Amino acid sequence: MARTTGSHSDITGPRIRAAAQDLFARHGYAAVSMRRIAGAVGVQAGALYNYTRDKQSLLFDLMQAHMEDLLAALDAEPRQADPLERLRAFTRFHIRFHLERQDAVFIAYMELRNLDPGNFETIEALRRSYEDRLEAILRDGVGDGTFTVADTKVATLALIGMLNGINTWYRAEGRLTLEQVEQIYWDMVRRAVAG
Amino acid sequence: MARTTGSHSDITGPRIRAAAQDLFARHGYAAVSMRRIAGAVGVQAGALYNYTRDKQSLLFDLMQAHMEDLLAALDAEPRQADPLERLRAFTRFHIRFHLERQDAVFIAYMELRNLDPGNFETIEALRRSYEDRLEAILRDGVGDGTFTVADTKVATLALIGMLNGINTWYRAEGRLTLEQVEQIYWDMVRRAVAG
Repeated sequence: MARTTGSHSDITGPRIRAAAQDLFARHGYAAVSMRRIAGAVGVQAGALYNYTRDKQSLLFDLMQAHMEDLLAALDAEPRQADPLERLRAFTRFHIRFHLERQDAVFIAYMELRNLDPGNFETIEALRRSYEDRLEAILRDGVGDGTFTVADTKVATLALIGMLNGINTWYRAEGRLTLEQVEQIYWDMVRRAVAG
Repeated sequence: MARTTGSHSDITGPRIRAAAQDLFARHGYAAVSMRRIAGAVGVQAGALYNYTRDKQSLLFDLMQAHMEDLLAALDAEPRQADPLERLRAFTRFHIRFHLERQDAVFIAYMELRNLDPGNFETIEALRRSYEDRLEAILRDGVGDGTFTVADTKVATLALIGMLNGINTWYRAEGRLTLEQVEQIYWDMVRRAVAG
């Protein structure tokens, strides 16, 4: 059954992470053993330890990579000056990035409870760093009168919550195109913080 | 270690459900065995089967009870005529009901993947029934010009997503009182659908 792929560490590492992400998303971190991950990859259980220290490291690496990809992708977006345009770009970016990574997003929210305290702190710092990008947009827009927001931190969390919800219901084959969904959400985001 | 409490079915049933809810929320449904639930209650594993058919039934019963409590509590709220007042009451109700039931809410969203197809359909129907209550408010408000919403179904899901997010960050001992949080969210909800 299990097939040892041996020395292909450049290939096996990504395959292990992909298998772990798929299994964690489907069954939950606590229910998935290293042996099961090895079986999905087709290596012996012992071979996993050439690529990762333990299951906790595997979970942490997945969550850290997801958050670092998110920050890098956001920071690579074209810069705009106008707070309203920046908010529109953030909204569109957030929806697309998260819809394309359903499993990673699900794990990033659901398995926080299973991170060791030090790992939890690292992931939370990355998450706050992402939230800070949105809060800076809102703060700049409040400063120049574009937005009226009683509390930029809470407004940030409210908007992210609204946008995250899309992952729970949107299906590409559904009634609305992605562009239509983006337009409806942008219209609500814009009005929720309107000056 | 395990203590058999025997015939107190009126007490044991609720204790089993409470223990299952706690363990499912902390570790995930797939990682928790019937034996572990029995251990937490202090009964023999076999005794659980006097109260529930299997672990799937236990999960389904928890999720169904949560959704039925939610619908009953919403329907017991004072009736208002004005769509804006109804939306305000819904917002306040949703925030309070969900903040008071963090474990049940977490399970209701996270363990959908672990429901058998028939059970999933039942829970989804209850959830749609709850969403329909909010959509009816939006539709009435669009009808009389109180609200402007491009798609009442999507707006419903967007508002519920925004409100659900509170459970991920609000702490009673934090910077803001519940009343302040309610006011900030209501202000954003109101504006997001404003006419």
